Formats: sequence, C-alpha cells, structure tokens
Amino acid sequence: MGNQTIWFKRAPRIVATSSVAGPKECQGIVGRYVERALSDDMFGESTFEKAECKMLSTVIDGAIANAGLRRDEVDMIVSGDLLNQIISASFAARDFSVPFLGVYGACSTMAESLAVAAAFIDGGFCKNIVAATGSHFASAERQYRYPLELGCTRPPQSQWTVTAAGGALLSAKGDGVKITAATLGKVVDFGVTDVNNMGAAMAPAACDTILAHFRGTGEEAEDYDLIVTGDLGALGSRILKDLTWEKGLDISKNHVDCGEIVYNVIEDEFQGGSGAGCSAVVLASYLYKKLMTGSLRRILFVATGALLSTVSSGQGESIPCIAHAVVLQR
Amino acid sequence: MGNQTIWFKRAPRIVATSSVAGPKECQGIVGRYVERALSDDMFGESTFEKAECKMLSTVIDGAIANAGLRRDEVDMIVSGDLLNQIISASFAARDFSVPFLGVYGACSTMAESLAVAAAFIDGGFCKNIVAATGSHFASAERQYRYPLELGCTRPPQSQWTVTAAGGALLSAKGDGVKITAATLGKVVDFGVTDVNNMGAAMAPAACDTILAHFRGTGEEAEDYDLIVTGDLGALGSRILKDLTWEKGLDISKNHVDCGEIVYNVIEDEFQGGSGAGCSAVVLASYLYKKLMTGSLRRILFVATGALLSTVSSGQGESIPCIAHAVVLQR
Repeated sequence: MGNQTIWFKRAPRIVATSSVAGPKECQGIVGRYVERALSDDMFGESTFEKAECKMLSTVIDGAIANAGLRRDEVDMIVSGDLLNQIISASFAARDFSVPFLGVYGACSTMAESLAVAAAFIDGGFCKNIVAATGSHFASAERQYRYPLELGCTRPPQSQWTVTAAGGALLSAKGDGVKITAATLGKVVDFGVTDVNNMGAAMAPAACDTILAHFRGTGEEAEDYDLIVTGDLGALGSRILKDLTWEKGLDISKNHVDCGEIVYNVIEDEFQGGSGAGCSAVVLASYLYKKLMTGSLRRILFVATGALLSTVSSGQGESIPCIAHAVVLQR
Repeated sequence: MGNQTIWFKRAPRIVATSSVAGPKECQGIVGRYVERALSDDMFGESTFEKAECKMLSTVIDGAIANAGLRRDEVDMIVSGDLLNQIISASFAARDFSVPFLGVYGACSTMAESLAVAAAFIDGGFCKNIVAATGSHFASAERQYRYPLELGCTRPPQSQWTVTAAGGALLSAKGDGVKITAATLGKVVDFGVTDVNNMGAAMAPAACDTILAHFRGTGEEAEDYDLIVTGDLGALGSRILKDLTWEKGLDISKNHVDCGEIVYNVIEDEFQGGSGAGCSAVVLASYLYKKLMTGSLRRILFVATGALLSTVSSGQGESIPCIAHAVVLQR
C-alpha cells in the first residue's frame, strides 16, 4: 500500500485497564500505578506457566470489571503471549465464555491486539473487546534460554523479562483514551543472531514502523507528548534514536522505552526489561493513568517483538523483528 | 454478546488462492486441484522447518500473483502456523515488504485469518490482504510428539499432520468467492488429555461454534451445500455429528471433514489428516474450485484447533480447543 497506517474514524476507546506485576517490577515505576502488586512471583500456583496464565486471567477479568461490564457483554478477547502455542492466552480464555482471537507478535502483542480490537470495533463488528497480554521471567527464561535452576550467568547486553500482565477494555463509546490510528509493521531483519541482544535486533523494526507512521500520517515527532517503544532496553533505545536520526527524524526529545524505565534499580537486568508484559503493564498502569489525568495528551505506543524461536536460532537463522504502533489520545 | 456471528456487509471476496502439497497429500483429493505438487517433502530445503516456511512463502506469493497484483498492492499478510513462535509465518513474511499480523489458532488458523482479513477489508481499512497457513508432518511430529528418527509407533486414534499450505487473496472487490459472515469461537475444553486424540478433543469446540452460528444467524443446515470442518478426522467427525444431533441439529447430510477426505488410502494415517495445512489446502484447491465453478454455492467453513503445548500437557492440563467459522458463497 505504501501507507501502513489505518485510521479509526469512530475512535474506539480504552474505557478501563487492569494490571498485575511481580514484586521486582513493583519496586519500579509501575509500582505506584499497578492495580494488583504480587508479593510472590508464583501467584499461588504450582508452576511459572500457571502463574503467568493466572496473571493474564486476572487482568482480563479486571478490565471487564473496571469497565463495569459483565462477561456476557464482552464480544471478544484478543490475546497472545510468549509461551509456545500461546498457552497463557488460550488457557486464560478458557475461563471466559467469550469468543477468542489468538494473536502472536512476541513482545509486540499489546500493540497488535489493540490494533486488531480497534479495527473490529471501528468496523462496527463488536462493541466491547478485551486486549491483553503478559509475560513471566521464569517461564520465558526456561523456554527461550536456560531454566533458572541451572544458574547461568547473563551477558551485559541482555534484558530481564518482566513478570507482569496488562489488559485493556476497548469500547465503541464511553469515556476513555481514544485509539485514533494504527500503523501495522513489516517484518524487518538486520541479521542480528545474538539471542541475548534483543534490543539491537528489534530497534530496526521499531525505526521502520515509526518512519512509516510519520511518512503515512504527515505528522511530526512534536505532535506526540511521548513516542513509547515496548522493550528495546537502554541499548536498543539508543540504537533507535541513532537510526531514526540518520533518516532525518529526531525523536530524542520525546522518546521513552518501557524496558528502559520499568526497573528502578538495575542489577542483573542490565539493559532493562523486556517481554510482552513489559509494555502491556506500563501502558495499562502508568501511561493510562497519565493519559486519563491529562498529564499526557497524545502518545504513539510502539510495541516491538522479536519473532525468533529456539529452533530457528538453533538452525542458524537471524532474528526477524516487528513493531506495531497505535495512536492513543485523550 | 450472545451472538458470536459478525456480518460482512460489503462481502470481501477471495479473488485468488494458491496451494502447495506434499507427495503423499497429492495422492488424495487435493492432488487434482493443487497448484503445486511437491515431489519431495523437503522442497529443496535443509530442514523440515525451512521446507514448511518455503511452502507458506510459495502460497503467499502465488495468491498475490494469481490475483494479478504486485506485492506493493497488498496491504497486509495475516498468517500463523503450528510451530513454536509461528516461525514459518514470521520468516515467510520477512520475504515480503508487507505489514504482517501474526495469528495463532493452531489448526483453526485458516478460518481465523480469513475472518480477521475479512474484517479489516469490510471495515474499510485495507483493500487487499493475504490469509495463509500451512503445516508439515515432520516438523509437527518433532515438535509435538517424537522426532521421526525415533521410529515411534502411532496409536489408532491418531491423525497424520498434512504437509501442505494454502493461501487466499482477499479483496474489497472483484470476481471471487464472497465471505459474508464469520462466527468466532470460544475456547472449549471437555477434559480430553490424550494428545493423540485430537479429533475427540476438538469436536466439542466445532459443535459449540456450529450451534452458535445457526443460533445467531437463524439459518438451518440445509442452507449450506456443505458444512466443512477442518481436521477432526474420521472419529472426530462422527463425534461432532453425534454432539450436534443431541442438540437438535442434524448436519449428517451435508457435513464433511477435511481431515477425513484428504487422504485416499489410509495406512498409517488412521483417522485421517490434521494440521493447519489440512483445511487450508483443501479450501485453497478443491473447495475454491468447486465454489468458483458453481458445483458448490454456499459452504460453512469451520476450521478447528487444539490449543495445547507440550508444556501444558506435561503439566497435566487437558486440551482446550477452538473453532472459527466463515460463510463462503459464490
């Protein structure tokens, strides 16, 4: 199309959010805004995967309740997560008697699910949709890298998968944060093969989508209070600023990365947070509150995802990445 | 909502399809209709996963070419597959400079991607979208069960993952097969834990969606030339007929299952075919041709998916399933 941006003329709105975060995450910026702070990463479950699923169920339930709706008033749940076969989302959806669309965009899932949900509402097909995702440090480490029990050391370019979930209830009407447009990303691969350096792998995808967004809309960086990326981390965020600057777009004044800001104290997290839950929880707690109270008026939310698997890496493939952007305004 | 069915008032249409199938599959019903018959399951690649990805690339490319379009006229690719992190779809999308929406619905992916694509077109957001999926016997066995090299025997209730891919080019206008409605499924779990008996696990989900479709639309089974399920296999298809009959809906006269009909000679396939590629290739070759030539006028295409992972099964979980339905008519 040349133009990757779609406009939502009726502006579906996020009328409620819900969020859950682990104890480590609650020490940081989301701690003051999160709806439910966990005292224990296990969330009362017997496995990390079940804890992740329960976090997702909790925010789906929470978003519906916070919007003052009953479950049978929700037309659809759009969700996905990082685990193989998106079991957290599928098993969470099992608890709700609501149609389910499973999506996969790795850590870009929050933006993808918001864009899909907004399209279904703006197209007139649905009235109320929950978009949600989450991640868990221990289940992600076990699946993508090494089980925690092995005690492997982590390299300095690595990030820490956020243990958290965020959900949003999108509605055709009501008071909330409007979704006015979405720019859907292409798969971009700059040949990075280091599975511990997701920020470097994902930055070119974020750059591609952000440039496409400004090219397609004719807007400028100043039209946004914030340009928020998902989980590039400190290094990835610097790479993104360089890449966009090289292309003639200066986002340095209003760019912030959820991965970079999610943790207060950096010890083993090195470059900061990552995971589908990273941008989801920052959006569903901190950013949503700032938008609703007027501290922020208009933001570009660009969640980024690395579309690798252990099999693709094992077979010598580089890491294809993607970023989807949605425009959120009060 | 109570009503799970959404209507596409402008009726997006499938203006072209493309299909690829392995040598075993080409001995069956799709052999006479498939666009590209492979002489070798490896498709010239070094791994099963790369062969699966190449099949998917081929049908995406084929659907665009068969529609007489250039790649830059395509607004979006909606795709997913059975492999962890849907690498076949993500890596295939890397070859195309086109926005990508990754979806996951296991073997229900063809119906899910058609429904999502139809909504984006009918909502006025896009003009041309490719919906595609595929599967490969050897990569699926390796990931979900045992590597073929182990030579494990398979129980009689098992099915054979189809090595094939199918893609459809949906367009806002043009001559083709119209998509007039979609019924989005809920996650249904009847407690089946036998990972070799997908038909029994998925039949209740197919039943749930089919009943919701007829309840929501007020139509009757006779309004369709065929009610086509994705990959229940012979046993699952019988269970579905029993379950719907118990609920007062007799689909026995016009129900057919892609998994049951895809193989001509049943040797090791036992209950028939399965996999995301099963319903995708039958739709993109045989069914599409029959619709375009007028042998079939109107069908309900109900692809079914089992939303398990090896981790969820290993942790003692049962198998949640889903089915999405789309109405296809000339």
